Amino acid sequence: MKLLVSIIVVYFICVCSIQAQSLVQQLGYPEGTKLLILHADDLGIAHSENQATFDAFEKGMVNSASVIVPAPWFSEFVVWARQHPEADLGLHLTLTAEWDLLKWGPVAEQVPGLVNDQGYFYNNVMDVIAHASVEEVEKEIRAQIERYLAAGLQPTHLDSHMGSLFNEKFFSVYIKMGKEYNIPVMINFDFMRKFPGVKPTIPENTLQVDQVPMAFPKNYQDGMKEFYSNTLRSLPAGVSVLLFHCAYDNDEMRAVANDHPNYGAHWRQLDFNFFTSEACRKILKEKNIQLITWREIGELLK
Amino acid sequence: MKLLVSIIVVYFICVCSIQAQSLVQQLGYPEGTKLLILHADDLGIAHSENQATFDAFEKGMVNSASVIVPAPWFSEFVVWARQHPEADLGLHLTLTAEWDLLKWGPVAEQVPGLVNDQGYFYNNVMDVIAHASVEEVEKEIRAQIERYLAAGLQPTHLDSHMGSLFNEKFFSVYIKMGKEYNIPVMINFDFMRKFPGVKPTIPENTLQVDQVPMAFPKNYQDGMKEFYSNTLRSLPAGVSVLLFHCAYDNDEMRAVANDHPNYGAHWRQLDFNFFTSEACRKILKEKNIQLITWREIGELLK
Repeated sequence: MKLLVSIIVVYFICVCSIQAQSLVQQLGYPEGTKLLILHADDLGIAHSENQATFDAFEKGMVNSASVIVPAPWFSEFVVWARQHPEADLGLHLTLTAEWDLLKWGPVAEQVPGLVNDQGYFYNNVMDVIAHASVEEVEKEIRAQIERYLAAGLQPTHLDSHMGSLFNEKFFSVYIKMGKEYNIPVMINFDFMRKFPGVKPTIPENTLQVDQVPMAFPKNYQDGMKEFYSNTLRSLPAGVSVLLFHCAYDNDEMRAVANDHPNYGAHWRQLDFNFFTSEACRKILKEKNIQLITWREIGELLK
Repeated sequence: MKLLVSIIVVYFICVCSIQAQSLVQQLGYPEGTKLLILHADDLGIAHSENQATFDAFEKGMVNSASVIVPAPWFSEFVVWARQHPEADLGLHLTLTAEWDLLKWGPVAEQVPGLVNDQGYFYNNVMDVIAHASVEEVEKEIRAQIERYLAAGLQPTHLDSHMGSLFNEKFFSVYIKMGKEYNIPVMINFDFMRKFPGVKPTIPENTLQVDQVPMAFPKNYQDGMKEFYSNTLRSLPAGVSVLLFHCAYDNDEMRAVANDHPNYGAHWRQLDFNFFTSEACRKILKEKNIQLITWREIGELLK
């Protein structure tokens, strides 16, 4: 009887201990460690975006990125990804085409709720939520994942362009797809807080990073170097994913982001500049911030 | 009885005379006139292509162009076309996506014979002929025309990207679509001659231009300025459509035409240079070549 009680107690303590483990601990680091993924979004939209992100991987601190599969330059991403099998590359699941002059639409067929009257994705998240059904979103997400896999690549993670999946209507499909394909999903609570009253249910055992900082227009106005420096200097312990976008401020990118200074060509050039700078490297070292990738988080799912 | 015979004879002469009229005469010019359309293809594929073509319209001799509707920058074309309602703009019907790093696919759904295993158009015409049915091609052409019309624009003409419709299998669909939508179609006999044994039937009363010169790789090697100068200097009488492509030789266009010097970024820059040059303007004047547009040919269909 004593033995049985002991076994039960030990089992209970083990289970509690596993459940209570932070992601940092699950990754094998001591509690209190600052772990960081430096993550560039929006690969695939333009050659400028692709080239700057590839350069930032090779010359800078950037160590993770994700691609828009329906975007026109996806094939250029595929070529680079095949040449860099060690790179941490994921799928930026996309349901919107937000730029005025450059457009894309669904990979799946027969998803009328996902397209506007010109046959492209809507240019904003609220229209997607208003018009698309959960079934259409699942069909499209599945088609994007299947096209990525058909290129002979395995995404290390999933995330959501413009946060279009971070709402009550679509969030469960996002989680479901991650589980079905056994790919870690990035969850951004900051985005969710933008939709008042939305409280998506996160199933138990879903791996969650601790914070997902990114720059907003106010930060751009005040100075990006200062924003990123301060963000890194004050980075809390835990797993953080710092989101940004690398592109060159050239003719192509200025046309993509026509009349949109926010997240536009100059903004993305500043992102590239900071995350390939010696200043960035220095802060990471000084503050003892350790870079990890989604690949290591994905290992926990195996 | 005499009167009846006279009426029949007069009627017969009139019909013969109408049928025997050359396109030059139908357009109201004396036989022997040299009429020319300076036509830039491939609008829509890249910002570089769009911008160079728009600039060539505004600063140069270029007076006609056509757009690839499924290409990513179609919306930029739409904006410019709306601002330039007088411009002679047509639809470059497209069934191929020939570049390695930048891709597009069908506007229509459920046309499996038109797509490769990555979901894009094939990169060459022979694969389109081998895999696509006539019904699928009609469906796709119709979808491209409908998307163009849905943008609130009216194409002044139709032509065929990479000549994929200039073969026995698809040619009749091309002619049929032109008749159905009452839009003049560009017929390129030079392309047809590339397919041995192909003799597409051209229905009576189909408006046909007389020659469609364009540069080939040998001309690029020998010098484009010389080729275009000689082509213009030796231009025969009749209606000619001189085909070329304007783009800037910049990062974007060099990535589009990655590893393809033929019809690549430098080639297209040379096209732009010539057709915006004083040399070109001078030859047109010296040789008494008169520029016309598809708009005037289209008037004959009304």
